Amino acid sequence: MEYPSKLIEDAVSEVAKLPGIGKKTALRLVLHLVKEKEDKTTALTEALNRLRSQIRFCKTCHTISDGEECVICSNPRRDHSIVCVVEESKDVMAIENTAQYTGVYHVLGGIISPIQGVGPGELTIESLLGRVSGGKDIKEIILALSPTMEGDTTAFYLHRRLKDFPVKITSIARGIPMGGDLEYADEITLGRSITARVLFS
Amino acid sequence: MEYPSKLIEDAVSEVAKLPGIGKKTALRLVLHLVKEKEDKTTALTEALNRLRSQIRFCKTCHTISDGEECVICSNPRRDHSIVCVVEESKDVMAIENTAQYTGVYHVLGGIISPIQGVGPGELTIESLLGRVSGGKDIKEIILALSPTMEGDTTAFYLHRRLKDFPVKITSIARGIPMGGDLEYADEITLGRSITARVLFS
Repeated sequence: MEYPSKLIEDAVSEVAKLPGIGKKTALRLVLHLVKEKEDKTTALTEALNRLRSQIRFCKTCHTISDGEECVICSNPRRDHSIVCVVEESKDVMAIENTAQYTGVYHVLGGIISPIQGVGPGELTIESLLGRVSGGKDIKEIILALSPTMEGDTTAFYLHRRLKDFPVKITSIARGIPMGGDLEYADEITLGRSITARVLFS
Repeated sequence: MEYPSKLIEDAVSEVAKLPGIGKKTALRLVLHLVKEKEDKTTALTEALNRLRSQIRFCKTCHTISDGEECVICSNPRRDHSIVCVVEESKDVMAIENTAQYTGVYHVLGGIISPIQGVGPGELTIESLLGRVSGGKDIKEIILALSPTMEGDTTAFYLHRRLKDFPVKITSIARGIPMGGDLEYADEITLGRSITARVLFS
């Protein structure tokens, strides 16, 4: 596509670098901004610049945070003896949204993936071991990783590194999702949901 | 959804104001920017700010332009005796992409829509009449408006205002799109494509 304006072309090319946004969507967004008042664009770009320059990561759990320690780690009413290990900050948000968990988190910052060149050293695994061995009285580690090959690899690696500590290691339940139709569940999920069946309550 | 960070919340709220972007997509985009290097965010926000503060509209055809006159109007090799009337600058880009048109354009800046409170006065219709009556030797006006009620209303209005000038008024062809299946075409399009049939060539 050719653009009648270099300014449009530059803006489209930058917006189209965002994940899941193609050139056509980018053009639509950019033309929308041009039609709106200038302060709308300013509000957007200022929020993004402020975010990117001021964002920090919690010194304890490595989740996205406004301050040195995140609101979850600094909350004394959370159960600091249970640590839920997740890949990314967005998983923390997803679990927080369920309002079913009162423990704290540990964000790995990714997942072990030899294909993408991510080894255990790139993740915050040493920091997690430090938390467990640091006398902070951690009783349980919940592994909440993706149900993929990389997720399982990371879980096995973490299990091997953690098994000598006096800590219970659990994993989130796998099974048929709520509202899921048995007919459309894959065999592995369905198989696991039968072997890992629970008492009807 | 609750966010662990006010910075994230603000950024998501701004990004989610863009058309077709919901809170979930906005969060995905924002977290992507946080993961990337800071200069990626700076490049994006600078391109948008530059666009919004420097963009101009061609003094002749009102399309988006970097300078006072757009690259099409200022091109002496274009046929300035044919003017294609469209709603928005993006329609100019769409027609330019076909590489089938060598005339110039006139961007109305919208379409007559009483429901949305857009009357002829909000559009660049007087400017179009000025071009036609201004002795610039315009021979043909092509109406390339949306095939909707509002598009037809605008086309009829323009026809009424233009019919006393010595200028040919045409409209883009309506019919079955290339690759379109007759079975799935609506009756009006199919009906019009039969009554407006053309010689096989």
